[in-house]
Amino acid sequence: MTFPIDRGLLAHVTQRDPADPDARDLAARSVWSGIVEPGDRIAWLAVDALGAAPALNALIDNWDAQHWSNAVGGSATPEDMQLALERWMPRLDLPASTRALRQAARCGARLVVPGDPLWPVGVDDLGEHAPLALWVRGTDEALLALNRSIALVGARAATGYGEHVTMEASAGLVDRGYAIASGAAYGIDGMAHRAALASNGMTIAFLAGGVDRFYPSGHDALLTRISEVGAVISELPCGSAPTKWRFLQRNRLIAAASRATIVLEAGWRSGSLNTAHHAKTLGRPIGAVPGPVTSAASAGCHKLIREEIAMCVTNPDEMAELAPLAPTAQPALFEEQTYTDDRSRLLDAMSYRAPRVALDIAKRSGLSVAAVQAMLGELELEELVAERERGWLRITPAREKEKKKSKETS
Amino acid sequence: MTFPIDRGLLAHVTQRDPADPDARDLAARSVWSGIVEPGDRIAWLAVDALGAAPALNALIDNWDAQHWSNAVGGSATPEDMQLALERWMPRLDLPASTRALRQAARCGARLVVPGDPLWPVGVDDLGEHAPLALWVRGTDEALLALNRSIALVGARAATGYGEHVTMEASAGLVDRGYAIASGAAYGIDGMAHRAALASNGMTIAFLAGGVDRFYPSGHDALLTRISEVGAVISELPCGSAPTKWRFLQRNRLIAAASRATIVLEAGWRSGSLNTAHHAKTLGRPIGAVPGPVTSAASAGCHKLIREEIAMCVTNPDEMAELAPLAPTAQPALFEEQTYTDDRSRLLDAMSYRAPRVALDIAKRSGLSVAAVQAMLGELELEELVAERERGWLRITPAREKEKKKSKETS
Repeated sequence: MTFPIDRGLLAHVTQRDPADPDARDLAARSVWSGIVEPGDRIAWLAVDALGAAPALNALIDNWDAQHWSNAVGGSATPEDMQLALERWMPRLDLPASTRALRQAARCGARLVVPGDPLWPVGVDDLGEHAPLALWVRGTDEALLALNRSIALVGARAATGYGEHVTMEASAGLVDRGYAIASGAAYGIDGMAHRAALASNGMTIAFLAGGVDRFYPSGHDALLTRISEVGAVISELPCGSAPTKWRFLQRNRLIAAASRATIVLEAGWRSGSLNTAHHAKTLGRPIGAVPGPVTSAASAGCHKLIREEIAMCVTNPDEMAELAPLAPTAQPALFEEQTYTDDRSRLLDAMSYRAPRVALDIAKRSGLSVAAVQAMLGELELEELVAERERGWLRITPAREKEKKKSKETS
Repeated sequence: MTFPIDRGLLAHVTQRDPADPDARDLAARSVWSGIVEPGDRIAWLAVDALGAAPALNALIDNWDAQHWSNAVGGSATPEDMQLALERWMPRLDLPASTRALRQAARCGARLVVPGDPLWPVGVDDLGEHAPLALWVRGTDEALLALNRSIALVGARAATGYGEHVTMEASAGLVDRGYAIASGAAYGIDGMAHRAALASNGMTIAFLAGGVDRFYPSGHDALLTRISEVGAVISELPCGSAPTKWRFLQRNRLIAAASRATIVLEAGWRSGSLNTAHHAKTLGRPIGAVPGPVTSAASAGCHKLIREEIAMCVTNPDEMAELAPLAPTAQPALFEEQTYTDDRSRLLDAMSYRAPRVALDIAKRSGLSVAAVQAMLGELELEELVAERERGWLRITPAREKEKKKSKETS
């Protein structure tokens, strides 16, 4: 059988023509997002192998575990599939999915799926743990700005020091052209969003529950404002409550959607350390702001620095260095260098910290692998890139380094 | 000709029998210490090649630069020697040397030279920049304690935060069996010494001028107390004034004489960064204590951490980890392991951070190279040491690491 679609509702939350051939995929993903918990690897494999709509039909048709395992080409064993079905089947509730869709339409939430021009490409780096769909209340600009976002995260129990530094960081990064991503929690997160808004910057909040009911409730006004000028994002459908698991998985989205993660204040067991570890797994640059060693709220930051998970960062310049924006945004640094558009796009697609292979750079820049390889050769001669064991790295030209050095010692 | 010796005075400041065959060497080194500025490489080469007394006689006999260059086997060119002679000759003043000796005797200062059992072996790592002699006011115990000392250094313009952390660090390290070395300056240095004394610990102050007139004068009482229970050390003879150069060279002695250097608070251009860089050159472990990023007094510490010169350290345990003491001092860590005396000596002579070759380890431990090599093999199998490109490193047994980890996460 095939699952039913309310085309009117769907058109509303996807802003697409109901006749769009992808409509079934979109509708199926909206249902899937209510069936699985965030980061469900088996669901990702099923949707990847069959497509979202056929996979949902298979679920409705009650395929057995062996059938599923065969369908995903053995990438999940029948045992894996059996456990997955036991998780999914109790939640296969099409009327509930329609109610969630109606609630989304009511609060102005949209559904964004992989392949959509607004889909934040960073989350695809999560691979089999990537979200199947995202629910968004906010502007197109904010979604696009995720490509130049830095995540500012930290403890709920922030100190005055932590909030002050967060304010400076958020405002300073907005001034440098970055968008600010965070989790909208009390303390550091809230301050990061607020300071970005105060600087007329772009800011994006990732929630652990549905975007229809803002959490924490004390941040209702803040999240409403963010949804008006920025974006509030969740992978759970409307009506979903935040849970501990969903908070942890929300953290992986923050890390993946941003270019770098900065922990501003974190106790020894703060949830923001979890965000940092997700960023590490993804090879994203991580910064941590030190603080008084007498402050428990900085202990987690010091731990990240000591364990060499995070770079010690003390001001917006050092934070921005972790994830430099395109040359156009930083004319001063490259003033004597002329860049063609393609060169900019290629350099833009590279990292100063995470080596990337040519194929990866080609994907990120939208250039052909051949063009990337040819330009990498040129750029290597100009000492703007260097080849490492695990791929190509963007480097600071020796000339710039010397300039910086002489500035420091003069 | 040969230079004259006041054997009575010399016996006083060297505490040796005037008939000691080394008396001429000691006397010559006392004169040399007044002729050369600290760290004079050419003087070290001359004394190394000819011996202190013959070299002094050659100076008195007015050897020309070519003669000197030949005498040091060409390790200094005639041009180097000419420049050196132009530095030295104006200061060759034997009556002044005798006056300095008399002043040393008067204030109870002693002369300690290489080879003396009380000579701090660490300073020999300075190689051609090692001191020719040291003037000491203090106890034998304090000199011997340098082998288990950690240098606590930092800004004169310390904040209340910096002084508090220094107090905790000094007291905590004394509790763990370390002696505290520092430079007796106002601010962090003074607090490091004071807290060590308050904890009945051993503390050693290195001065940039003679040990007869304590500098800074506001620390006269503190330095008097240090000279009574610890030691006050300088490579300049009595009567010498502290100069900028001598402060910088004094810093090299602090770094070389200690097992590790910790910078507790330092502005962007603090002299304590100079001590850290000397420690780096020597391959000694370096720690820096983070502080508020809003505090200029912590900017130098953050710089050291960011540039990976120093490890971020936040408490005495983490500081002690940089330079672990012999197993006997840390029974808990090695409780399940039985150690022979030779094994202890060998492990003691190794570093967790600076790789050392077998010959170096043999020298430090007083064991034969053959014995060291045999034992390194055994210890490698037990995963207590590991061979690196530049030598052998002491490592934390995997078992201990796991124990620590489970403690952290439990």
